[in-house]
Amino acid sequence: MKNKISFQGVHGAYSEEAAHHYFGEDRACLPCKSFEDVFRNIDQDITEYGIVPIENSLAGCIHQNYDLLLRYHLIIIGEYKLKVSHNLLAHKSATLEQIEKIFSHPQALMQCENNVKNIGETQIFYDTAGSAAFIAEQQDPTLASIASMRAAKKYDLKVLKRNIEDFEDNYTRFLVLGKPSKKVELIQHSTVVFKTSIVFTLKSIPGALHKALSIFAIRDIDLVKIESRPNPQKTWEYIFYVDLIGHADSDAISKSLAHLGEITHMVKILGSYVSGD
Amino acid sequence: MKNKISFQGVHGAYSEEAAHHYFGEDRACLPCKSFEDVFRNIDQDITEYGIVPIENSLAGCIHQNYDLLLRYHLIIIGEYKLKVSHNLLAHKSATLEQIEKIFSHPQALMQCENNVKNIGETQIFYDTAGSAAFIAEQQDPTLASIASMRAAKKYDLKVLKRNIEDFEDNYTRFLVLGKPSKKVELIQHSTVVFKTSIVFTLKSIPGALHKALSIFAIRDIDLVKIESRPNPQKTWEYIFYVDLIGHADSDAISKSLAHLGEITHMVKILGSYVSGD
Repeated sequence: MKNKISFQGVHGAYSEEAAHHYFGEDRACLPCKSFEDVFRNIDQDITEYGIVPIENSLAGCIHQNYDLLLRYHLIIIGEYKLKVSHNLLAHKSATLEQIEKIFSHPQALMQCENNVKNIGETQIFYDTAGSAAFIAEQQDPTLASIASMRAAKKYDLKVLKRNIEDFEDNYTRFLVLGKPSKKVELIQHSTVVFKTSIVFTLKSIPGALHKALSIFAIRDIDLVKIESRPNPQKTWEYIFYVDLIGHADSDAISKSLAHLGEITHMVKILGSYVSGD
Repeated sequence: MKNKISFQGVHGAYSEEAAHHYFGEDRACLPCKSFEDVFRNIDQDITEYGIVPIENSLAGCIHQNYDLLLRYHLIIIGEYKLKVSHNLLAHKSATLEQIEKIFSHPQALMQCENNVKNIGETQIFYDTAGSAAFIAEQQDPTLASIASMRAAKKYDLKVLKRNIEDFEDNYTRFLVLGKPSKKVELIQHSTVVFKTSIVFTLKSIPGALHKALSIFAIRDIDLVKIESRPNPQKTWEYIFYVDLIGHADSDAISKSLAHLGEITHMVKILGSYVSGD
């Protein structure tokens, strides 16, 4: 069990696909009902690692997983960007003309709307892979599912159409999580590119964010992601999520973070890891 | 028809609730299947205005609506922040003990998970209000829906439990959209607080964002939202969504935007409107 990776969804989910790309095909994955279950499993040593989506190029950022990162004492140890390719799957005997109903997660249905609207009526399901498992069970050639190629293989379904997403640039960024003891060490003088994710809070005063970013700019540290969000606990305070290029233990970043502490209420390092860009 | 407001969902949806808070209870709203239909209806003069969610405090930002704002020649003319309160609704004759199945949108089901897990099995639906309409039709006292109080009223359902969300601070920010001719004019010397939403692209070079934000900081312009996103069309280029305090026609902001044009590939003003904060 210890060697497994927790993910949200059922076998064949995009999260499991990302886990296999990251850890290798031979690593077993443990399906979880919710994102919080993924965090809990790592926290309680049920699995060594976990993987959660953090942002999708079309749907945006998943704040809930940032909230869980603040609540649980876990760190980010890696990232993986998965190109999401949706496929129309059906029973082995089915043909495209027979399809009447198409099952999938609402987001996947939305992302394939133009490509499937003339094929059949859409019906929603909790997750993409779950809809593949469901139609495999039904053995009805009029039913189809929108899911990954991995789900097609897992549930022994026929691929009626590949890459049916309306927008090509659809990728999801996943974070690999572990306990603080799994910390990724800084390798000095190497060509490996590290990324560090931090969270901090600032008062809503003119120029506050500019001051915070100056701390990194004067040290030539590059920012690759920034996102602000009103603090649900404190009116007029903002939470910032920032990804920096470099390791938190490097001289430049560790000094920057000490400096940032002078002007913020809270700074938390979510982890340093090898960049997946 | 011209006087109506387009929204995504069915009658009783949170978007319709936001539209009524913003425009008043007497304004008729036109349900649309997709967000793009809302944009298209305004563009083709089917309705004068439209309303779309842009971010939720738990689920994050809806990039798709930012993309549509770049594709359609429309502007933001207002905003409304709606506190999302979910309620457990059922047939008039139902009691809490009878409930076996609970229908709603996956996000609403997730947001009420702890509060409903001992009541019944959850089943997903395209939207919250749609699930209320469905159980009203069924007239079965073992079925419940999670939806707004407005949906309860609209479909004449009994409220079994109010405010069943697990997290209290759940609000959604909606943008009110119109054609450029509906532009909100700057009122000089007034106490009205304006907000301006802009989008711009920057090359991924160290300090580029710091330079861009300096343009606002040196003119004492406050930023209330910032979000970055890799440009799906151009690798190594980032799209930034920024909300500024002030009107685009004010001296300080118009000069800032001209200045920003010197260091960016693209700057687009999405609209200036009265702040809803």
